[in-house]
Amino acid sequence: MFLRQIQTAAPIDKSINSAAVLGRLTIDLGAIAANHDVLSRQVGPECKLAGVVKANSYGIGMDKAAPVLFGRGSRRFFVATPEEALTLRRILPLAEIAVLGGGLPEAADEYIAHQIEPVLNSLHDIALWRDGARRSGKILPAIIHLDTGMNRLGLSESEAAMLIQDPALVRGLDVILVMSHFACADEKYHPLTQSQYERFSLFARHFPRAQKSLANSSGIFRHSDYHFDLVRPGMAIYGLNPTPETSNPMHPVVALDARILQTRTLKKGESIGYSATHIFTSPALTATVALGYADGFHRANGGKARLYWRGIPCPVVGRVSMDLVTVDLSHLKDSLPQPGDWLEVLGPHQSADQLAKSADTIGYEVLTNLGARYQRIYRDAV
Amino acid sequence: MFLRQIQTAAPIDKSINSAAVLGRLTIDLGAIAANHDVLSRQVGPECKLAGVVKANSYGIGMDKAAPVLFGRGSRRFFVATPEEALTLRRILPLAEIAVLGGGLPEAADEYIAHQIEPVLNSLHDIALWRDGARRSGKILPAIIHLDTGMNRLGLSESEAAMLIQDPALVRGLDVILVMSHFACADEKYHPLTQSQYERFSLFARHFPRAQKSLANSSGIFRHSDYHFDLVRPGMAIYGLNPTPETSNPMHPVVALDARILQTRTLKKGESIGYSATHIFTSPALTATVALGYADGFHRANGGKARLYWRGIPCPVVGRVSMDLVTVDLSHLKDSLPQPGDWLEVLGPHQSADQLAKSADTIGYEVLTNLGARYQRIYRDAV
Repeated sequence: MFLRQIQTAAPIDKSINSAAVLGRLTIDLGAIAANHDVLSRQVGPECKLAGVVKANSYGIGMDKAAPVLFGRGSRRFFVATPEEALTLRRILPLAEIAVLGGGLPEAADEYIAHQIEPVLNSLHDIALWRDGARRSGKILPAIIHLDTGMNRLGLSESEAAMLIQDPALVRGLDVILVMSHFACADEKYHPLTQSQYERFSLFARHFPRAQKSLANSSGIFRHSDYHFDLVRPGMAIYGLNPTPETSNPMHPVVALDARILQTRTLKKGESIGYSATHIFTSPALTATVALGYADGFHRANGGKARLYWRGIPCPVVGRVSMDLVTVDLSHLKDSLPQPGDWLEVLGPHQSADQLAKSADTIGYEVLTNLGARYQRIYRDAV
Repeated sequence: MFLRQIQTAAPIDKSINSAAVLGRLTIDLGAIAANHDVLSRQVGPECKLAGVVKANSYGIGMDKAAPVLFGRGSRRFFVATPEEALTLRRILPLAEIAVLGGGLPEAADEYIAHQIEPVLNSLHDIALWRDGARRSGKILPAIIHLDTGMNRLGLSESEAAMLIQDPALVRGLDVILVMSHFACADEKYHPLTQSQYERFSLFARHFPRAQKSLANSSGIFRHSDYHFDLVRPGMAIYGLNPTPETSNPMHPVVALDARILQTRTLKKGESIGYSATHIFTSPALTATVALGYADGFHRANGGKARLYWRGIPCPVVGRVSMDLVTVDLSHLKDSLPQPGDWLEVLGPHQSADQLAKSADTIGYEVLTNLGARYQRIYRDAV
């Protein structure tokens, strides 16, 4: 074999012919637009929707999702990192871009050059941004993040008190936005939510000219008091359920199908997959599907998740492999799926929120871990 | 804010200045070469090493890893999907490329055009590949995969018996390689391993002119009988431990560092992160780090994993967020890390195998889920 002569390969097309694709991710940009509208109605005309497009728009594709949100009227966008901010600036030259994860002082000059604003999470961040304003000879817009109980990012209570006492700390800056972030708004009643709201309100009233922003997706549905001037929906825009205690008010955005490579019959007593964790107690019919943890189908789904054939759940048996997963078809009566057929991973019968439960996680992690090997099909917003 | 005039942005450099990077993934290509050498010595000069580069070389980067393996002498490569095969053909015009996940019949003509071989997993696959040979007017090289107990892909026992009885089934094909795959070789003694070896040997002797391949990374270390002509190490090449019962004979390939965005002091009774799952029973000092489940730092690490500051473990407290994780620094005596400092996620104090335990998974999933937001630094093989 190693002596076989290999010719220089023929020119290679950009990708395989799509009929040979093994995983197909369909993203409905129309549903993203519709979700924007649902949320707009929920908050009313006085409140704007920011576009939260960090983590490649929760795995959906920032280059596709951000223009849809801009098209529906969003002007303020949030990303997590300096690099994401530059990527977004290329996509949306006219958007207002805020970076939750700072990157000061190193990113300051690039932020100024590209009209990007770091979210200022401390008095130190504020001082660094004032340095930038001084260097650039401009009054820079400033976004101040108050920590009201998340204890992750933002000004502490004592820093907030110092800032209120000494307005000189923001001299040279134009405080355009004051914000905080809910920790527990996904629970219908959590005492921390109201307490965060109260702390935020007390602080925010010291910045009468600034816009105020508190609510994430869930916060939007908890109380209209939480809306202020700007809400920051992420997961709800991408179709996850912001009100887990009841049915999902959002439109589903993502569908994922994976292809059967092979079916096989097993005898009673045979095992399947790595470590032979699953042993069949009666004869079985299984399908091996081109989907694995390298595609973001979490290994924790092993023995727990279901894929769907024409609406019928087919349980995952044995461990999830890197590129493959096996499902049990033994209960299917007629219309058995064949190699080449597609099984539903996400779609009308299984939402990302539902699949997440199999892996003991949340829909956010399902979306953000969607793999790179799928063919991505974007359905345009109408 | 929404009326603020935004200028058309200045031209945007390709990426943020590297000092503002928040996550840094360092990949040691020299360690990949060294691992190839370790495995070559283990199998001896009569046995070749295939390059297993599916799933973007286990998350490492196929475009970087595959040429290193080719440079150390590997000529036969395995990928999972038709799309990966075309990608690899662009990277290595002279490699022999096999596709584990088929894609027949749709991919057949592209395979033939680019001298790529599908691994034939059934008599049906064999028939489809013979069709391809007939269409192209060539005798095509064929790789036959026998299922010896994994029950995932490959010819079943009855199909194997039919093939042996009727050599006409491979007429028009040149069977160059016969292979199977271990299910439990990561366990030092598992009865299935020896039974798979025996089934494979019985089958393989019917193809005296074909090369034989059975062992994956762990199989290489279990018994020299398992080596045959070609071994297919994946995880060991990328630095994971193929012998979990003892110390790792491989060189570490991956290092990952994440940056502290902010530190904060918490009072007794305060909570941290989403759902306020962690409540401090005494005053604490924490660091918020730019690393989240969107970066492949699994949400299951919440409350369990550790990051390292100068070799000292700092436990993750509370939930892992999409872009952030919080660690407890309260136990650090002196030389406290500051915002901008790097914490070790993977490196000398924590291997991918070790981090995997925190999330109740395996090192493979840690590697294949490494996120897209890291700056990737490749150290060249010397």
